[in-house]
Amino acid sequence: MDCIFCKIVNSEIPSTKVYEDDRVFAFMDINPLSDGHILVVPKAHAADIHEITEADFAAVTAATHKLAAAVKKTLDPEGINLMQLNGKAANQIVPHLHVHIVPRWSGDGLTICKWEPMAGDMEKINEVAKKIRSEMGD
Amino acid sequence: MDCIFCKIVNSEIPSTKVYEDDRVFAFMDINPLSDGHILVVPKAHAADIHEITEADFAAVTAATHKLAAAVKKTLDPEGINLMQLNGKAANQIVPHLHVHIVPRWSGDGLTICKWEPMAGDMEKINEVAKKIRSEMGD
Repeated sequence: MDCIFCKIVNSEIPSTKVYEDDRVFAFMDINPLSDGHILVVPKAHAADIHEITEADFAAVTAATHKLAAAVKKTLDPEGINLMQLNGKAANQIVPHLHVHIVPRWSGDGLTICKWEPMAGDMEKINEVAKKIRSEMGD
Repeated sequence: MDCIFCKIVNSEIPSTKVYEDDRVFAFMDINPLSDGHILVVPKAHAADIHEITEADFAAVTAATHKLAAAVKKTLDPEGINLMQLNGKAANQIVPHLHVHIVPRWSGDGLTICKWEPMAGDMEKINEVAKKIRSEMGD
């Protein structure tokens, strides 16, 4: 498969690795949004959250938790954004699941994860919730 | 503690619940970015990723994985953004850890999780990586 993150995991393309275990590989984003921008990926190819196994997703998020602590200790950012994008409509570029760990500082000028809260239509919200609840087995 | 999400978890404030287990509570965001915008929180108060226990974070992310599948099945969005914001500098508003599940559609006009990739300074990236790797026990 011609997947850039699979090639990074398999060392066919060099990367700056920061963590690795049986299921997970983490490396520095070479187009960083800020100092310490890390990507955490499963070693087994999975395009997105719909394809990844429960065990691999658990391993990726556990590694993300540990890496966030390491980023806090080493860089002491004022905040951290975690982002995981699924699908082109959600701005995913590489179709191999990855979690972005983005250290943040006040006044860093980043506009990611920023929006003005606006009240929603409660009738519509309740209708959607009913469908999701039913799908969740409630 | 005067925490709005603790009050939602304890039913002191009403919410539109979509999922609940021993450790996790998930409900519709009343200021949704899109149809199906869900918040997933741990029942035990934790301000952010630095405070939450390993077990609670694992439970929150496992529930998020299941909910993403339910959202896909019920709403069939073209994409999904997962976001988890830590600290005011990262645009976190309510200081009780929460994962945003935001369904996405092409042309929905949302600017969250969107940026232009720009090449970073490899020397600086390597330097930061070295510190993080060392903190990760490598």
